[in-house]
Amino acid sequence: MATWSKASLIVAAIFLISLSSASVAHGGSRSRRFVRSDDYDEPCMKMRLYFHDILYDYSNSTSNSTSAVVASPAALLKAMNTSIFGTMAVFNGPMTEGRALPPSLEEAAVRAQGLYFYDKKQTPADAWFAFSVVFNSTAHRGTLNLMGEDFISEKTRDISVVGGTGDFFMSRGVATLQGDAIEGFKYFRLQVDIKLYECYV
Amino acid sequence: MATWSKASLIVAAIFLISLSSASVAHGGSRSRRFVRSDDYDEPCMKMRLYFHDILYDYSNSTSNSTSAVVASPAALLKAMNTSIFGTMAVFNGPMTEGRALPPSLEEAAVRAQGLYFYDKKQTPADAWFAFSVVFNSTAHRGTLNLMGEDFISEKTRDISVVGGTGDFFMSRGVATLQGDAIEGFKYFRLQVDIKLYECYV
Amino acid sequence: MATWSKASLIVAAIFLISLSSASVAHGGSRSRRFVRSDDYDEPCMKMRLYFHDILYDYSNSTSNSTSAVVASPAALLKAMNTSIFGTMAVFNGPMTEGRALPPSLEEAAVRAQGLYFYDKKQTPADAWFAFSVVFNSTAHRGTLNLMGEDFISEKTRDISVVGGTGDFFMSRGVATLQGDAIEGFKYFRLQVDIKLYECYV
Repeated sequence: MATWSKASLIVAAIFLISLSSASVAHGGSRSRRFVRSDDYDEPCMKMRLYFHDILYDYSNSTSNSTSAVVASPAALLKAMNTSIFGTMAVFNGPMTEGRALPPSLEEAAVRAQGLYFYDKKQTPADAWFAFSVVFNSTAHRGTLNLMGEDFISEKTRDISVVGGTGDFFMSRGVATLQGDAIEGFKYFRLQVDIKLYECYV
Repeated sequence: MATWSKASLIVAAIFLISLSSASVAHGGSRSRRFVRSDDYDEPCMKMRLYFHDILYDYSNSTSNSTSAVVASPAALLKAMNTSIFGTMAVFNGPMTEGRALPPSLEEAAVRAQGLYFYDKKQTPADAWFAFSVVFNSTAHRGTLNLMGEDFISEKTRDISVVGGTGDFFMSRGVATLQGDAIEGFKYFRLQVDIKLYECYV
Repeated sequence: MATWSKASLIVAAIFLISLSSASVAHGGSRSRRFVRSDDYDEPCMKMRLYFHDILYDYSNSTSNSTSAVVASPAALLKAMNTSIFGTMAVFNGPMTEGRALPPSLEEAAVRAQGLYFYDKKQTPADAWFAFSVVFNSTAHRGTLNLMGEDFISEKTRDISVVGGTGDFFMSRGVATLQGDAIEGFKYFRLQVDIKLYECYV
């Protein structure tokens, strides 16, 4: 394991200096080198992004919304009154390097596309996420696929990065979610710290 | 490969003697060691849990239910009469070491949170699952993320453990599902044998 | 890494000569050997399949349909008129080696069972997929579990193979999707090139 650890540290260091060099490095060739990091604090790749969600059902604006409720358990919600258990939304929201919303909600270079649903009867409800982070810029092209439980009542919570494509070919890791802003059900912003521990560089 | 195999057997043995030692072992440090098992019968970690599901739509009790139907294809189901194809439920149900329901449905130390939907027109319908197993006790903290097809008509069926967090950081494996009890659509209990073959210990 | 690369090339070669030999090779024993390929063009296993989807809502035939819409954001869709954002379907469709539909839609040896939903407001909408490929023949028994974003407007797009069971125990890889035929919303056929880069053989 000693050799692996050293290799991953060196690669991690190179990686963090210039994330975008990765896509240059493999250039024409499509062969890569597998790197594993076994230290939570030393991923082989990391990045921080902010995910923005503007729910149509509360904004009533088709252009200024990024998600919409598609399903919910009507009878249960009526009986429980304030619960949002089972309410499911489909989203396609921008992910940004800073906290500000991008100029155009529909043309961000990084997007999160998928679903979430609330899965706890009490308030605040937890949410379960499954989505792709889609990169479409000169720096990165490709996707990361994530799923896991978002314990909204805890300060930070980890979900799984279960796969990737393009520049993120076959990656695995963890994404740490942290609530960063919330306006009722209309808008929320999550800080998403993506940390990959299995990289093909 | 020989060294890997030996290492995984030794670690598997240590692991099975005391599951909870894992969370102690890495203590303050957040560095871990990767272990792979390549023998179906010798996972690097395993546990048996029972998953309980009480469907609101058939119990009509908000406190004594753990799941609710959130979506279904109304026109198709009307045309087919007895089919439940496409019926989707969100759940947050207890997972227990024994078969008995826990004293409180909402405070089990291990929970399964996610969705299932029926995806076969004939009876018995198959179901597709995607969920997190959430551990919140002194023995374990963290989550495992699972997805796959549950062929209800077969005695046992395997789904994938595609990732993990906390004590189950980056784990992968297989979970074998087996029907253990069923009361119409109101209640079912699944025996879930979780076997991890890629562990970070 | 050199030894790994060589090993994976040799195994890849053996594998591609006869895919079905894999299930024979591990026979009675349940021990396997892990193989990694780190070259996009040299997976340790690959196969091409065609996925057929016939939407009930447009065919109105219970026996001649393989999917049905289970959820959608009614208010948003009414406001946007032509958008299908958020529309979610559950499917159980045949996967075939050639382009032709199988004699019986419900008895194909390989099936795709899961869900997709449209997650882009503009046309053509992107879709997000999560499903199992289910193999049930003398050649293969087991499942592959996939998830990811299907950018319908691009010629080809990769989603992740995040796990597997049975003959595909613990596999990981990428599936390249390509539109192969489309008849409005009633029928579409996808070419699915499954490439595994982490195999247990």
